Amino acid sequence: MINEKCIMIIFGGTGDLAHRKLVPAIYNMHLSGQLPESFALLGTGRKQKSHKQYRHELAVSAKKYSSQSFKEKQWETLAGNIYYHDIDLQDNTGYQRLKETLKALSPGTNSEGNILYYLALAPQLFSPVSTNLKRNKLNASPYGWRRLLIEKPFGYNLASARELNTVITEAFSEENIYRIDHYLGKEMLQNILVLRFVNCIFEPLWNNNYIDNIQITASETDGIGTRGRYYDLSGAMRDMVQSHLFQMLALTAIEPPAQSDPHSVHMEKLNLLKTIQLWPDSPIEEKIVFGQYNNFRAEQGVSPDSKTETFSALKLTIDNDRWRGVPVYLRTGKNLGEKIAKIVIQFKVPSNIDSHILPGSSLADRSDLPNLLTLKVQPREGVVFQFNIKKPATMGEIVPVEMDFCQPCAFLINTPEAYERLLTDAIMGDKTRFTGWNEIECAWSIVDNIYQEYNKAGAYLHQYEPGSNGPQAAIDMLSRDNRRWWE
Amino acid sequence: MINEKCIMIIFGGTGDLAHRKLVPAIYNMHLSGQLPESFALLGTGRKQKSHKQYRHELAVSAKKYSSQSFKEKQWETLAGNIYYHDIDLQDNTGYQRLKETLKALSPGTNSEGNILYYLALAPQLFSPVSTNLKRNKLNASPYGWRRLLIEKPFGYNLASARELNTVITEAFSEENIYRIDHYLGKEMLQNILVLRFVNCIFEPLWNNNYIDNIQITASETDGIGTRGRYYDLSGAMRDMVQSHLFQMLALTAIEPPAQSDPHSVHMEKLNLLKTIQLWPDSPIEEKIVFGQYNNFRAEQGVSPDSKTETFSALKLTIDNDRWRGVPVYLRTGKNLGEKIAKIVIQFKVPSNIDSHILPGSSLADRSDLPNLLTLKVQPREGVVFQFNIKKPATMGEIVPVEMDFCQPCAFLINTPEAYERLLTDAIMGDKTRFTGWNEIECAWSIVDNIYQEYNKAGAYLHQYEPGSNGPQAAIDMLSRDNRRWWE
Repeated sequence: MINEKCIMIIFGGTGDLAHRKLVPAIYNMHLSGQLPESFALLGTGRKQKSHKQYRHELAVSAKKYSSQSFKEKQWETLAGNIYYHDIDLQDNTGYQRLKETLKALSPGTNSEGNILYYLALAPQLFSPVSTNLKRNKLNASPYGWRRLLIEKPFGYNLASARELNTVITEAFSEENIYRIDHYLGKEMLQNILVLRFVNCIFEPLWNNNYIDNIQITASETDGIGTRGRYYDLSGAMRDMVQSHLFQMLALTAIEPPAQSDPHSVHMEKLNLLKTIQLWPDSPIEEKIVFGQYNNFRAEQGVSPDSKTETFSALKLTIDNDRWRGVPVYLRTGKNLGEKIAKIVIQFKVPSNIDSHILPGSSLADRSDLPNLLTLKVQPREGVVFQFNIKKPATMGEIVPVEMDFCQPCAFLINTPEAYERLLTDAIMGDKTRFTGWNEIECAWSIVDNIYQEYNKAGAYLHQYEPGSNGPQAAIDMLSRDNRRWWE
Repeated sequence: MINEKCIMIIFGGTGDLAHRKLVPAIYNMHLSGQLPESFALLGTGRKQKSHKQYRHELAVSAKKYSSQSFKEKQWETLAGNIYYHDIDLQDNTGYQRLKETLKALSPGTNSEGNILYYLALAPQLFSPVSTNLKRNKLNASPYGWRRLLIEKPFGYNLASARELNTVITEAFSEENIYRIDHYLGKEMLQNILVLRFVNCIFEPLWNNNYIDNIQITASETDGIGTRGRYYDLSGAMRDMVQSHLFQMLALTAIEPPAQSDPHSVHMEKLNLLKTIQLWPDSPIEEKIVFGQYNNFRAEQGVSPDSKTETFSALKLTIDNDRWRGVPVYLRTGKNLGEKIAKIVIQFKVPSNIDSHILPGSSLADRSDLPNLLTLKVQPREGVVFQFNIKKPATMGEIVPVEMDFCQPCAFLINTPEAYERLLTDAIMGDKTRFTGWNEIECAWSIVDNIYQEYNKAGAYLHQYEPGSNGPQAAIDMLSRDNRRWWE
């Protein structure tokens, strides 16, 4: 039980994110004693609705989406502290009524305590809500903290992100703004720095002397579902690369933080992001591959002549002493053959290996034999290390084999969902697993630059079949370098 | 099928080694097509016996001890080329009759071809047999090679080993002498150099900057069985350390051989053995622990006041630039709780780890958290790597976990027995997996020195319970250094 008190207000409390992720996470936190002793949840929506009706709707979602089994009695305890409030968020006048509602909540969880605002909204509402909270003096209080949790996308490009940041920082101080990249709440991302720095064997090898390339993949089997209108305005770069993929890359590649406090980690991530560029000295089409799956243009909400990329593969460089010369290959897309997020560290092949490969061996190719360290982020967290041995019963044939650590197999507990971790952090005031404004700013400027180069080069959009590995051009990008994506 | 022809003569063809190891290995080689097309096996013994009777006795052993199922028809093909010859090996006169027998064998496998002599005998017979072969001109031939396979123990100490070597090198040239250490035929020992040198990640860490200590264990659950008389004259040091444990250590620790030919590997092993010493600067009883299991003195063939060690643990140093300061702990014994042979490389714990260990964590002790690389030699070959992760569902508790590569699980084939590998090598003339004379000489001088220091210090012999981990003093040896044996 957390020794804090708070009300959590979900703006967008009837939306998809609230139903599928936030309320199931809160229910799990309730079960595992991670909620404050005094806690109330207030969801808002446009429609009028009774508390009872809202509680009932959330119960259905908790049943459906929680990773835990549904326990009627425990749910009832939680549901007694769940409230609904209808409001038109664009209309300033509704916020006074919200203030009254908050006051009426029981002591300990009323407006004289701590309030967590969660913006589970369409991005265009981030600014008006923030402004209206300020106008109605809901943004700060002498009685407790007021924290703003804001979902990605944080802006659409560098300019709009800056605009948004100006508006919200007028209402909330930087320390009270929690910008969510839910990948940072995933167990394996929390684990990257631990793996790197509390083990003796990785850090000495973690540089361009030993590492040949870094590959980060976040592929989805789903298409865009009902989010066609949003996605057509966004695309794979804005939706995934600017946030999740850059964060995975940053944690993989940062210098050791001086300390493990959030500020030191943010500073190192920022330093790292500043050094990311497109790979120099090759034509743009060899380092940017955008793809669109067949029939994307026929999806609901998508423009019939859409040029939005649903797939993106990039070849980047990290321009610092540790990584210079090591290509970073990123890849993400919708409607692909496999749902997976992973980081593959490909080590160099020792120069003497040719003398160990026997003539006539089935593996006469050194490109089959790099050591690979794979960090599996989802769906099943784990670490896999590929290395070479003498094939048993042969004189000296070299074959690659794998060692596997499967986290859910080793720990027979349900790994907490990212949102459980992040909500707990926000209530506790721990900003480690949230994205700093400077990081977002820097990530947008890289993305803006990539779009610019891409458009300048002619913006060629490759088609790909749903269920495939993406466009052939993404495979060619690596084979041109005598490399391959490790599937 | 090997494109060589040969007769293999087992001196001691009715003994334990022939029945349990050699003939089952030859039967397996026959099944897998590893025997020469023209091959005959001639076993010798003191008793008179018909070929038929001998073949029958070997069939029983092949059934009992081969890792492969017994196939009547295939056995019969092999058995047709198995012969028996009675001889008193100490008596020179019998060898002329042996010569006649060889001549009478079918062309391709008669004495005008290649002959492999296997000394599966009590050590005191090595010299007379070698001498008698020479006297009767069975030691060399213009028609084919004559190779001598000689089982350990190669001598009892440095002086006797030199004596033996003088005798056998009078009969056979060094290139035709194959000194067996059957551990060198084990898959995982063949794998050590591959692991080290065809993977990018191990070699950079393989030194005193990153490695804290090396632990080599070869423990047996068996007692001494019927070998009491031999064992009482030998002991754990002579029986295991001088041969198997030093060979495991040598392969683990040698410098990269300039080439992978046998000569280069032998030279590097020799260079390594030359640098091995007892750990300096501490009392002898802190670096030599000898033990004897309770009731050893009551075993058949053992002297009632025997001081022979059935357990030995040592703390050694390798006095070169790569390893200076890294203790090597060796341990071997009879009648212990677990049958296992393994090499554990313990890496250092990063100096920053304390800042990652949360107060109140169940693992508040950095001594729990070294990275460990374990090479499992037997009974199940494999590689295990222990590393640290953030414990799932915690804020940042560090826990050690394991990645495992199990060779027999990955390759669904029966790993060939060491003797199959070694017999094939001897027939092919590949000396990589045999011990060079210089290595044996060097190993004996280390062992002689250890016995000398031990006796000088008072020769304290610790008792231990059968089925235990050996004497407490062996555990204390490491805990005095704030270390532990990794079980």
